[in-house]
Amino acid sequence: MSTYQPPLADIRFALYDVLEAEALFARLGFTDASRDIVDAVLEEGARFNETVLAPLNRIGDEAGCRYDKATGAVTTPPGFREAYAQYVEGGWPGLTAPPAFGGQGLPHAVGVPLKEMIDAANLAWGNFPLLSHGATEALLHHGEPWQQEVFLKPLVEGRWTGTMCLTEAHCGTDLGLLRTRAVPNDDGSHAISGTKIFITAGEHDLTDNIVHLVLARLPDAPAGSRGISMFIVPKFRVDRDGGIGERNGVRCGAIEHKMGIHGSATCVLNLDDAQGWLIGAPHKGLAAMFTMMNTARLAVGLQGLGLSDRALQNALRYARERLQMRALSGPKFPDQPADPIIVHPDVRRMLLTCKALVEGGRLLGCHAGALVDIIGHAPDAAEREQADALLGFLTPIVKACLTEWGVECTYHALQCFGGHGYIAEHGMEQLARDARITTLYEGTTGIQALDLVGRKVMQLQGAGLKVFLEMIESFCGAHEGDAALAEFIAPLRTKADEWQRLTREIGRRAMSDPEEIGAASVDYLFYSGYVALAYWWARGVAAAQASSQSEAFKDAKLETARFYFARILPRTLTHKAAIDSGAATLMSLDADRFDA
Amino acid sequence: MSTYQPPLADIRFALYDVLEAEALFARLGFTDASRDIVDAVLEEGARFNETVLAPLNRIGDEAGCRYDKATGAVTTPPGFREAYAQYVEGGWPGLTAPPAFGGQGLPHAVGVPLKEMIDAANLAWGNFPLLSHGATEALLHHGEPWQQEVFLKPLVEGRWTGTMCLTEAHCGTDLGLLRTRAVPNDDGSHAISGTKIFITAGEHDLTDNIVHLVLARLPDAPAGSRGISMFIVPKFRVDRDGGIGERNGVRCGAIEHKMGIHGSATCVLNLDDAQGWLIGAPHKGLAAMFTMMNTARLAVGLQGLGLSDRALQNALRYARERLQMRALSGPKFPDQPADPIIVHPDVRRMLLTCKALVEGGRLLGCHAGALVDIIGHAPDAAEREQADALLGFLTPIVKACLTEWGVECTYHALQCFGGHGYIAEHGMEQLARDARITTLYEGTTGIQALDLVGRKVMQLQGAGLKVFLEMIESFCGAHEGDAALAEFIAPLRTKADEWQRLTREIGRRAMSDPEEIGAASVDYLFYSGYVALAYWWARGVAAAQASSQSEAFKDAKLETARFYFARILPRTLTHKAAIDSGAATLMSLDADRFDA
Repeated sequence: MSTYQPPLADIRFALYDVLEAEALFARLGFTDASRDIVDAVLEEGARFNETVLAPLNRIGDEAGCRYDKATGAVTTPPGFREAYAQYVEGGWPGLTAPPAFGGQGLPHAVGVPLKEMIDAANLAWGNFPLLSHGATEALLHHGEPWQQEVFLKPLVEGRWTGTMCLTEAHCGTDLGLLRTRAVPNDDGSHAISGTKIFITAGEHDLTDNIVHLVLARLPDAPAGSRGISMFIVPKFRVDRDGGIGERNGVRCGAIEHKMGIHGSATCVLNLDDAQGWLIGAPHKGLAAMFTMMNTARLAVGLQGLGLSDRALQNALRYARERLQMRALSGPKFPDQPADPIIVHPDVRRMLLTCKALVEGGRLLGCHAGALVDIIGHAPDAAEREQADALLGFLTPIVKACLTEWGVECTYHALQCFGGHGYIAEHGMEQLARDARITTLYEGTTGIQALDLVGRKVMQLQGAGLKVFLEMIESFCGAHEGDAALAEFIAPLRTKADEWQRLTREIGRRAMSDPEEIGAASVDYLFYSGYVALAYWWARGVAAAQASSQSEAFKDAKLETARFYFARILPRTLTHKAAIDSGAATLMSLDADRFDA
Repeated sequence: MSTYQPPLADIRFALYDVLEAEALFARLGFTDASRDIVDAVLEEGARFNETVLAPLNRIGDEAGCRYDKATGAVTTPPGFREAYAQYVEGGWPGLTAPPAFGGQGLPHAVGVPLKEMIDAANLAWGNFPLLSHGATEALLHHGEPWQQEVFLKPLVEGRWTGTMCLTEAHCGTDLGLLRTRAVPNDDGSHAISGTKIFITAGEHDLTDNIVHLVLARLPDAPAGSRGISMFIVPKFRVDRDGGIGERNGVRCGAIEHKMGIHGSATCVLNLDDAQGWLIGAPHKGLAAMFTMMNTARLAVGLQGLGLSDRALQNALRYARERLQMRALSGPKFPDQPADPIIVHPDVRRMLLTCKALVEGGRLLGCHAGALVDIIGHAPDAAEREQADALLGFLTPIVKACLTEWGVECTYHALQCFGGHGYIAEHGMEQLARDARITTLYEGTTGIQALDLVGRKVMQLQGAGLKVFLEMIESFCGAHEGDAALAEFIAPLRTKADEWQRLTREIGRRAMSDPEEIGAASVDYLFYSGYVALAYWWARGVAAAQASSQSEAFKDAKLETARFYFARILPRTLTHKAAIDSGAATLMSLDADRFDA
């Protein structure tokens, strides 16, 4: 069975040494986020995740969720209910939510590592509270006062959970095609009818009520994506004064049999004249949904990170225990029958790849959390605006890269186990199966890449990239003469320049052929992710050297950064070559001739 | 559910147009392998695989094998027995086996595409007859006449199946550690005791008997890998005159719960004074086992290829059917509610990646089959020797690259389905789970890479690479002035030169530090695989142009080759950079500091 120890030391390093969170939180006015308090929260979170959620991970995979056709009820795996009760009891649902609605108002930069821990401990379980955060955001930004009054507090307290009901059988990415209808009722509510699929946590037994945020069309809706409205559809009807009414016309029609996350209920939801309340303006539902989606996309990125870390931890343990063959340069443990496999260069390559992606990815994730805090709390409008542009640019990178790296790291970690990795009892194959959903839901990697290149780079003219490049240049300038960092600063600068040129070149080509955007998209996304990680690794080394961390810790950061620059960053060479080859190499073959 | 149509047109292209199999088979004296006969065999094989094996693929995954603890019996999934009976009835087990032992004596170059079809149709089912081929090879090369007489014919006819019993709980790669003991009996047989794990097809209900080839230690065995002997241990005892006796002391103690290939029985085998017959010389069992293993390694490579093709076929169908979004350059099917997703560049990128790896990989695989034929039948000793060196060099590349590409292609194909790919009913996730075993068993990718660099390049001084480079140069020379091929010849030559230099450089560095071998190994293996595929794609285009294939076919080969050279071959840039960075980037971090 796979085990999990929350990586508190590296989380603290990310927050305090690299992101200088103490000063940041103080500057942003988080008076209740002193280092003592944050440390206590992290430790208590670590304890909960390690002792309560992590042991339920395999149980969830084996037992799965059960669906009762007669009642439409979904039963979660053994222990999930009790764990959820403890989660609510501990105040975790509202960790970063506004105190006005019962939240604790802690910084998102603290919420990020806690989310990483939940996903590492038990990804499937983590999907039940996951979308409550998105629903909270949507209600905060778009809800009428009575809607906030009635729905926000139970969500923040975790007494209810939320969902996002977008997908229908014939449309996932292309929501303009959706058919679910909303017909006005006399009381100001709407009657919603249609069928939604792939609804995460769409039905379960953890809470008394579930708040579905449903996309549907009003009778006078224009065709396509400009005619979509968002509605609040609770499982049990809720009056404007908060009174709980009868069962609403929304029912789970089935749960999916999936490759992984068996403990997470992926539901078909049938809506039959369900009472729904319009949230936000009519026909503006897609914009409101994006408020939820961006939160969810960052969260899914953290799922990839959490799984990567758990996979690495177990592979590392196994690589130290498993004795097999001698080191090529001669026995390292002559008194043992063979050397532990961590002596072998290729096993180290796999472990170091995971380590570099996990620890670099953690900085990427925590920084995204800090940007959310800056956007919400920085006194200076220009700073907020810059942070917003940067976060918009980084969101598809965080989502797609951390999840693709999650697939990669669970692959390497399983590979370290050899044939034993393929056997269920070691738990490594579950991590690989669970990771596989993360590059699909909340927008596939391809969709993230289109968002990055089409929207964030082209439409918004690379405003976010500009901010990131300034960060890189500012860091490189600050360490100009630092001999210890020279080996990182020079290649980082070169890559940053190349990144800028590559972006301009894609833009230039896209002016004459819009297909160039899609043709460059995924390679550009990865390219960007690897340069971003190079920045964070360089900054990580600088922060470690300047810190009071142990020599062993500093050495580990330095050697992992060297590994990253030598063996991972060169992936940009391949991505650049692919981008440079342009759209013709993808578009020339007639669709009919793929199997000529 | 995923479907499968055997790719007969491309298989014929590979055999007849590219490998010029008609002339080759005639030259090698395969009098019964005329084009008519081979075509009939391929068509009948395609029919069997498409109509009998492919429909059982999902049933096998869902039902799995069942183990009865009381009797130690294993029941295969519904339909597997009947399919196996048809397989035997059709004469497929002995397709490439010598006629002297009841085989059909057809070329291995024909056996290769048939094996690809079996694995695409039903990988789990294919594992039951898989190791009979290896056992046949071992008996042919190392068996005494009575052993050949008694065991070969039932294996060739498929009445019995074979296994390879190597792995024990504490040793897989490092067989020098194995503990299973063999004590001489008075009748010339041995009493074998020990526990073997991960035994594919170690127990089942498809045949009357099972022939286990078991590695064990004689009482006077030297320690380590020089003290291993191989024994024939049938499930039911067999006399020297072929009489079937009582149940032998070998019993299945459990079957593993695995990520995939649920229809394949992976057994724990307990040997308790089982009667075994020494095969080959005492203490020389590892060499004998490698005879089996090389056959098995090529076969596992073909598993990766088969799964890749099935995955591609289904993704292609879905990409043509699924309507979602409009093309970036404007609607392509304005009368439909949206365009089919094959219009999108990134979907095409995923499909073309699969297509390039599948069709290129097919040439790699068929060529390996042709080399086996040349080694066995070429009249000229020098030609046989060259082919042997080349096949030795290519075997780890075929095994590792085709299986890693199998993981990659099943990944891309699933990704084309979006969230639907994660749901069991579409069958794409099964392909991904099944593919995951192929980079692990019969030696992980890391082990293949060590075999390539440590043994085939260093110990054998790159004899096989030399033959391959001569093939490339000969091809490039022959097409020197061919304007239509110039775009491929120039980069291929450049890469071939670089490959040679890179190999020399690794050799040079390994002289002072043997860890350089392991540090370069997997990157060198992939580098080699991509250059090898570049050669096959260039040759494929040349062969297509010179053939009587349709214009659509020629165009598809040309555009896919362009895609390969522009977007896949540049992966060599990253691998070269990683190799150039040397062992230090992997070995510097102290093993204790990985989680400092």
